[in-house]
Amino acid sequence: MTTFDALKAIVGAKYTVPGEELAERPQDFWNNDPTIALGLVRPGNVEEIAAILSQCDRDRQAVIVEGGRTNLVHGTRSNKDTILVSLDRLNTIEAPDTDNLSVEAQSGAVIESIQNECRRVDLRFGLDYGARGSAHLGGALSTNAGGFQALRYGVARDQVLGLECVLADGTVLSHLVSYPKDNTGYDLKQLFIGSEGTLGVITKAVLRLHPAPSTTNTALIAFDSFNAVARMLNRMRRDLRGTLSSFEIMWNEFFAFNTRAVFADSAPLGLEHPFYVICEAEGFDQDADASMFEACIAAALEAGDVADAVIAQSSQQRLELWKIREDFEAEIALFTNMVDFDVSLPVSRMEAFAEDATQVLKDKVPDNLGLHVIGHMGDGNLHVTTGVPRIDRTKTVKDVIYQIIAKHGGSISAEHGVGLAKRDYLHHSRSAAEVAVMRALKSTLDPNNILNPGKVLPI
Amino acid sequence: MTTFDALKAIVGAKYTVPGEELAERPQDFWNNDPTIALGLVRPGNVEEIAAILSQCDRDRQAVIVEGGRTNLVHGTRSNKDTILVSLDRLNTIEAPDTDNLSVEAQSGAVIESIQNECRRVDLRFGLDYGARGSAHLGGALSTNAGGFQALRYGVARDQVLGLECVLADGTVLSHLVSYPKDNTGYDLKQLFIGSEGTLGVITKAVLRLHPAPSTTNTALIAFDSFNAVARMLNRMRRDLRGTLSSFEIMWNEFFAFNTRAVFADSAPLGLEHPFYVICEAEGFDQDADASMFEACIAAALEAGDVADAVIAQSSQQRLELWKIREDFEAEIALFTNMVDFDVSLPVSRMEAFAEDATQVLKDKVPDNLGLHVIGHMGDGNLHVTTGVPRIDRTKTVKDVIYQIIAKHGGSISAEHGVGLAKRDYLHHSRSAAEVAVMRALKSTLDPNNILNPGKVLPI
Repeated sequence: MTTFDALKAIVGAKYTVPGEELAERPQDFWNNDPTIALGLVRPGNVEEIAAILSQCDRDRQAVIVEGGRTNLVHGTRSNKDTILVSLDRLNTIEAPDTDNLSVEAQSGAVIESIQNECRRVDLRFGLDYGARGSAHLGGALSTNAGGFQALRYGVARDQVLGLECVLADGTVLSHLVSYPKDNTGYDLKQLFIGSEGTLGVITKAVLRLHPAPSTTNTALIAFDSFNAVARMLNRMRRDLRGTLSSFEIMWNEFFAFNTRAVFADSAPLGLEHPFYVICEAEGFDQDADASMFEACIAAALEAGDVADAVIAQSSQQRLELWKIREDFEAEIALFTNMVDFDVSLPVSRMEAFAEDATQVLKDKVPDNLGLHVIGHMGDGNLHVTTGVPRIDRTKTVKDVIYQIIAKHGGSISAEHGVGLAKRDYLHHSRSAAEVAVMRALKSTLDPNNILNPGKVLPI
Repeated sequence: MTTFDALKAIVGAKYTVPGEELAERPQDFWNNDPTIALGLVRPGNVEEIAAILSQCDRDRQAVIVEGGRTNLVHGTRSNKDTILVSLDRLNTIEAPDTDNLSVEAQSGAVIESIQNECRRVDLRFGLDYGARGSAHLGGALSTNAGGFQALRYGVARDQVLGLECVLADGTVLSHLVSYPKDNTGYDLKQLFIGSEGTLGVITKAVLRLHPAPSTTNTALIAFDSFNAVARMLNRMRRDLRGTLSSFEIMWNEFFAFNTRAVFADSAPLGLEHPFYVICEAEGFDQDADASMFEACIAAALEAGDVADAVIAQSSQQRLELWKIREDFEAEIALFTNMVDFDVSLPVSRMEAFAEDATQVLKDKVPDNLGLHVIGHMGDGNLHVTTGVPRIDRTKTVKDVIYQIIAKHGGSISAEHGVGLAKRDYLHHSRSAAEVAVMRALKSTLDPNNILNPGKVLPI
């Protein structure tokens, strides 16, 4: 009996897809090549997952768990020797605990469904990003996703109170506590969050919730210097008393390009300023929040930090302002062969980083099509995108930009993870000693290297 | 040459204390017995720490790193075979980065000194607890300390952006990043935070800072039901828009006892209500914050949730209200042989837990001197204290209370850690499978078991 046959017996044949049929579906959201794998199994509960892993561990069979298949670093890419496991049947979301501000959900639950369940009882799940409609909770946690609200609520790791997961040998580790303080020995959940499915399979979590804000105030602001932007971020953190939820910076090149693309001739602000920010505060009192938001921007104008500003006067106008930050259609058309970076940097190094990156591209890849720098400035997280006409220049672009990131003490992966795409660049951010400890942990928890082998750690 | 002689050569004789002399100092803040150890060494930098650990690892020499020596679970208790390492010479605090809201400090820095450095530039270090004047940063991080501000800023783990530590074999792991998003492989720092010095020695950290609030509003509120307290917590989380910094619940028995002790006949509120809360909000706008605070309490009064309330009208009155929560002199005098618990529970189980604990003590330890329940309710964290006249009843008290904690899905250590004191009760909160993984991690990172041996994990 093959391993796949044994897995069929565990989950039932109707919950399996043989390799031949998988070839009919694209690999993931980003890649239309056929999915190549031995087969896919869809367990219905944690016991079946434990049995699957136990079987695969005995058979030295590589296993990749997939979520919503929108990973940005090829983190669930399979090959002809791997078994795929989908957790899409484990999608139960318990009723949120309104006293305790927590909710328990299985790994296959879709992020947006969790958000909606919580919204029903006036609670907010603090994780939100573009793929909310497809991404699974398990994928979000195993990649420690970031996104739009991290400034206020933290990254995926910060949302987790309790966790259940299954080790490579089928052992179930369950610690589904719903309180934030728990110093009973080592905090094991931290190992499985953010390790991209290489140390264990997350099956369930208890998530921290927050009161759902009821008011939104949004502004687009132009600045004439980076220091003025940095001062504004601190001013808003202070003056908006905890209601600040987004602070998205855009360098001029991206802003001017995308505003033209989105608005044609009716730009909400002039295009001549070096920096722009879309910022948003969410609170609980319509009048008080609006005055506080306006007063904060007025004080910054008064202090000479703000060059120009527009405050959204309707939810329609709010969406239009956000389009400048979120609509990438024109950028995708511009950058024929797009190369993008997900960088963390100390705020104080961001301006120099962007200048160096522009210069090095000019020197080393003179046919580049421009450099777009935007990001979640409140999290120290920039997204940097360029394009080159020739695909054979991609590696050069990566090499020179990763060096600039390292030079400024940056992280080569802020929120997307390492997967396959950044595995060979990991040394720019982590020392040989650190990678050696990572390998030791991998060997301890997955001695037969069956869990998502070849991802994260350089081979 | 003995190991201690070799260590002398590393740090210089004047930075060592031989075992004989150590006997002259008390073991720690809580225990006046003489310190028993082979000797103490005081390294001056991370290279010396690496050399010390490397030497001890080769010699299979047990090492205990001590901080401010105010650990509550005997976490740094030594014996005649251990070497003590003090990091008191590594107490540098760099200038806080006001753009990035971060500060880098060495492990021997005292918590209050870090707070003061940050205050100087209008920033807040979000960790604060009773031992602030003695506790070292290294101790706070290795025990994942909690304290008074966790509701707002999180526990010690949540303050850490980057970490430097030394492994048992002397390897230095340094990842001193100052940004909150960093998905470059496994988040190794999480292993060393909260593992009580058993997996590595923390030597330096980059800490997250926040704008320092400039206003304080404090109230003492009486409630006639636990559900009303729970509703008030959620109301304040929502209506105070992120300024809520403390929400400390007191059950009647403690409140009535301590109010009489602190105030004699001039109690600020009647003593007949079952629950009391001291709550505090810190913001940035004197008038607006005061109105917001008063309006929130007024609305709860209107809704029938608040039985009675007093808002501090001066900083003097604020300190007096806090004395009811923080002055334990009378309690220490009452409970001749004190037995205390540091518990986490879901908010929805707190009331039943306290009832069960009272009942089980009445049944099994009828000579108990009362049960005082107070705690950081916003963190799910209760501190439970009782006293028995006979010290030989201590074990019975612990056994029955830990069982009640386990019955309600609680944690036997919310913020104090495990150390020696709770090691043998760990099974009430963690499964055999979890403890087995903890042991595997310990073997991987400290194969010769030299780091704080015998702590945390049951022998």
